Amino acid sequence: MKILIIGGNGTIGAKVSARLGLTHDVLIAGRNSGDVRVDFSDSESIKAMFDSVGLVDAVVAIAGDAKWDKFDNLTEEDFYIGIRSKLMGQVNVVRIGKDYLNQGGSITLSTGILADDPVDMTSSAAMVNGAIHSFVKAVALELPKGIRINAVCSDLVEDSYEKYKVYFPGNTPVPMHKIVDGYVKCIEGKVNGRIIKIIA
Amino acid sequence: MKILIIGGNGTIGAKVSARLGLTHDVLIAGRNSGDVRVDFSDSESIKAMFDSVGLVDAVVAIAGDAKWDKFDNLTEEDFYIGIRSKLMGQVNVVRIGKDYLNQGGSITLSTGILADDPVDMTSSAAMVNGAIHSFVKAVALELPKGIRINAVCSDLVEDSYEKYKVYFPGNTPVPMHKIVDGYVKCIEGKVNGRIIKIIA
Repeated sequence: MKILIIGGNGTIGAKVSARLGLTHDVLIAGRNSGDVRVDFSDSESIKAMFDSVGLVDAVVAIAGDAKWDKFDNLTEEDFYIGIRSKLMGQVNVVRIGKDYLNQGGSITLSTGILADDPVDMTSSAAMVNGAIHSFVKAVALELPKGIRINAVCSDLVEDSYEKYKVYFPGNTPVPMHKIVDGYVKCIEGKVNGRIIKIIA
Repeated sequence: MKILIIGGNGTIGAKVSARLGLTHDVLIAGRNSGDVRVDFSDSESIKAMFDSVGLVDAVVAIAGDAKWDKFDNLTEEDFYIGIRSKLMGQVNVVRIGKDYLNQGGSITLSTGILADDPVDMTSSAAMVNGAIHSFVKAVALELPKGIRINAVCSDLVEDSYEKYKVYFPGNTPVPMHKIVDGYVKCIEGKVNGRIIKIIA
């Protein structure tokens, strides 16, 4: 398969790209690196990325930002950081990307445990993750050409544990191979409209 | 209790207002009617509404729009209709409204079954509902003054059944008294951070 991985050089993306690259033709899109550059918060940039890459068999998005802060500090504009990037970036990947997918292709989005099990300072980040979960279930009813869509929803991963453990008291870190398996399941399997939850 | 009901003259809002009005001091905010007018998609208008109403014991939001259409027809801007109105309208009610709630007060938001059980043409509407579910769980960890927050999430209600039944094949309509009970549970009970699901 020809697979486009947006965010394929990130903490999780690099492990997913390495694994998929063993048996597939992988192209990496990134903000500052990769085979093609993309600004995930700009739908014109997403369109240009797909024009550059052409038809693919699978698209994976492991990208997008949302602001973490105390709810009392979050302005309306702060909420729009996550809305424009991690939320609408992923929606736009589906809106635009469906026209660049081959028959029977797949789209795999990325969320996190915050959607169902939030921690302090995540009212914006949790919101964006929950939005993607419901979006995936709804849009799976409508995609053309037998295109499947799923989201991989992980708990805190081992490679981010030292940096983020203070924010996730008591969360058992997920081994990297388990989250990589989640993406493989979505791309090589037949699942559709599912939120694949990855916990230790 | 002094209760502000945003959208208190709508299909569901009118029944909720009537029931709560039996034992509480109810104020209704609406786009075109009510004790105070509000444009739910404009945070300045929401702030002006709270300034006009002053301190309250409970805020209920049963308001906000999202665009329904085939995914293939939905533009990026169409998604922002729901984001600015039903999503950020409710987030802004919490952001701004927490400062107008008395100690131990409550905020009750409104979503729908689409978040978990979408139907055709609801990729935007489902997304907004799912976003609110995760937002409620996250922000409940951080609200000051013992303020509680919940969402009432209903299946298609009896009073909307004739208008919407074609979009919801096989959904059993919810008796109005059941959804009204959901709001009463959130306001008069002690639940917090919960999504109260109302099905027939």
